[in-house]
Amino acid sequence: MSASFNYSLMATDGLARAGVIRTTRGDIATPAFMPVGTAGTVKGMLPESVRATGADILLGNTYHLMLRPGAERVARLGGLHRFMNWDGPILTDSGGFQVMSLSGLRKLTEAGVTFRSHVDGSRHELSPERSMEIQALLGSDIVMAFDECPALPADRARLAESMRLSMRWAARSREAFGDRPGHALFGIQQGGLERDLREESAEALRAIGFDGYAIGGLAVGEGQEAMFECLDYAPGMLPEDRPRYLMGVGKPDDIVGAVKRGVDMMDCVLPSRSGRTGQAWTRRGQVNLKNARHADDPRPLDEDCTCPACRGYSRAYLHHVYRSGEMIAGMLLTWHNLHYYQELMAGMRAAITGGRFAAWETEFHAARAEGDIAPL
Amino acid sequence: MSASFNYSLMATDGLARAGVIRTTRGDIATPAFMPVGTAGTVKGMLPESVRATGADILLGNTYHLMLRPGAERVARLGGLHRFMNWDGPILTDSGGFQVMSLSGLRKLTEAGVTFRSHVDGSRHELSPERSMEIQALLGSDIVMAFDECPALPADRARLAESMRLSMRWAARSREAFGDRPGHALFGIQQGGLERDLREESAEALRAIGFDGYAIGGLAVGEGQEAMFECLDYAPGMLPEDRPRYLMGVGKPDDIVGAVKRGVDMMDCVLPSRSGRTGQAWTRRGQVNLKNARHADDPRPLDEDCTCPACRGYSRAYLHHVYRSGEMIAGMLLTWHNLHYYQELMAGMRAAITGGRFAAWETEFHAARAEGDIAPL
Repeated sequence: MSASFNYSLMATDGLARAGVIRTTRGDIATPAFMPVGTAGTVKGMLPESVRATGADILLGNTYHLMLRPGAERVARLGGLHRFMNWDGPILTDSGGFQVMSLSGLRKLTEAGVTFRSHVDGSRHELSPERSMEIQALLGSDIVMAFDECPALPADRARLAESMRLSMRWAARSREAFGDRPGHALFGIQQGGLERDLREESAEALRAIGFDGYAIGGLAVGEGQEAMFECLDYAPGMLPEDRPRYLMGVGKPDDIVGAVKRGVDMMDCVLPSRSGRTGQAWTRRGQVNLKNARHADDPRPLDEDCTCPACRGYSRAYLHHVYRSGEMIAGMLLTWHNLHYYQELMAGMRAAITGGRFAAWETEFHAARAEGDIAPL
Repeated sequence: MSASFNYSLMATDGLARAGVIRTTRGDIATPAFMPVGTAGTVKGMLPESVRATGADILLGNTYHLMLRPGAERVARLGGLHRFMNWDGPILTDSGGFQVMSLSGLRKLTEAGVTFRSHVDGSRHELSPERSMEIQALLGSDIVMAFDECPALPADRARLAESMRLSMRWAARSREAFGDRPGHALFGIQQGGLERDLREESAEALRAIGFDGYAIGGLAVGEGQEAMFECLDYAPGMLPEDRPRYLMGVGKPDDIVGAVKRGVDMMDCVLPSRSGRTGQAWTRRGQVNLKNARHADDPRPLDEDCTCPACRGYSRAYLHHVYRSGEMIAGMLLTWHNLHYYQELMAGMRAAITGGRFAAWETEFHAARAEGDIAPL
């Protein structure tokens, strides 16, 4: 790890870990949830509002930004932080996952992948070298190695082949990344749900050496039970003195289960996407504000929540503005959801530090089991 | 005027007036621009952000709110201020104008108007009595008399007939409004572009007696020149010791021209609607952020503007997020536009108070004549 990027493990409770990642742009308390700012904005939020929810770090998407507005353009404009007015740390993904899920007409070779933009059909290519270049142009603080991520279920031969390609790409990513003080490079473990492939992948990554290690290839349709089974062993294969990042996870109970199993960082579009579709996440589970039961309900979404949506508005209001297609519905519900996610992380950090994670987890599940408050 | 609602004329410069309207929910510095919060929200803005732009008062739409979520529901939920989390004064229109412009299948009689909702086709009626009831249920601070507003051009006979109906409705509105301490009722002058009809209407309204007087039936397609011609005489027909409100106006130069002619209050959806369609208003006129010339422009929209959009973001960013369909585009541009409008009003208030309105107006037009900054 470079002097300007380091991870300190502060406390453990079972396998759960609390720590701090120090970057030149500020500290990241872990376990950390990273809101997703796909195309240079966390949808529906001003960056100062994202900060106010307690977020220490944002995620940006290489795939989206390379297509629009373009990495070279962002660089000319002073980098992604300045462009999107966020001065905290930014992690960028490598683009590999989204090429697979979003683009049309892909061609995958040892060299990399060529594809057509989902925005305008234009032809592009990504490779470990180009992905490192783009992430450097964006000015990302935490750069992800370029990998291939197969959809699950996939047969073992396909998984093995894909994982080994990703490991060769990881080595090329490391080589292309070079020495960039103040910037970190994370490797990504692959191998699907095959334990030995996960081990082989972890060994390959450790041999290359990264500033942090991600667990990739999960949350792609395998279900929570299968994911947790994999997380029962996968984090332990990665170096204890580096942050461990589970990519693309997840629902609140996914996150709690991942932290319990030794994960330090996560990201997901769920809180912001849910917010735009009238869904709220609270201590008592999911609340669908579209539902007519809220139309006359003067109570806040969660009376104990201190976010602007819960302090200032009734369920009836949130229902009304969602039904009326008003922007403020997505703005308030996204804010609430991100606030809830950050409170969830803060609660876990405190519980781990206090050595009471198991009790905290019991309480977490008990509140959800109660379900939403009864209709009036 | 009730003791808890009054208007103080503080300064005049030519026909332009600076003053203060005092209400139980706070003072309104005039000339005042009222952002439009149609359905319980100024689109794309949190109310605290609207306040931060300098707005003293919001406008709410009776027509929209009666249809969804319903006036009785808003009343049960504690009134519109609480519902939408805005504790400053609210002016509500009477619903008359929007029944004419938005609803389907209308039937107009002496009693009032029956119509079908543009939301769900349900049947509703509005009358002076029902409009007063709805505006009371909403808890509006400034209530507008129920009127009919014919589209222009209209022949003189139609204008006269419509104006006289509106004056009979004004008397019924006054009667139905009754005595509501802390709440004001404004009458609305009609008469199209016919000076004698405007005079007849003003006399009828003065005979009834209102807390303030609106100029209705303008900004409905007649053009700025014709509107200014009417404003050369219409405000002077209304009592000098009461606020004068020009409904539904307008573009910045419309507003300046109206203030110059003695108008104290205005409202318009333009700054918020423009913001959502990539249009910005600045001292140098209109800027279309959709235009490709902004794609690489690192400069702010207006380097002298202190709004969040101008302090934190480049034109290139605003262009990018607009093109990408991101909510933040409408959020930032609406904020900027409302901020600009409020600065415009503050500039005029200071100029009137300082007795230099003519010089201010020359400067206003000179900056606009220069046009936007040159492309890089």
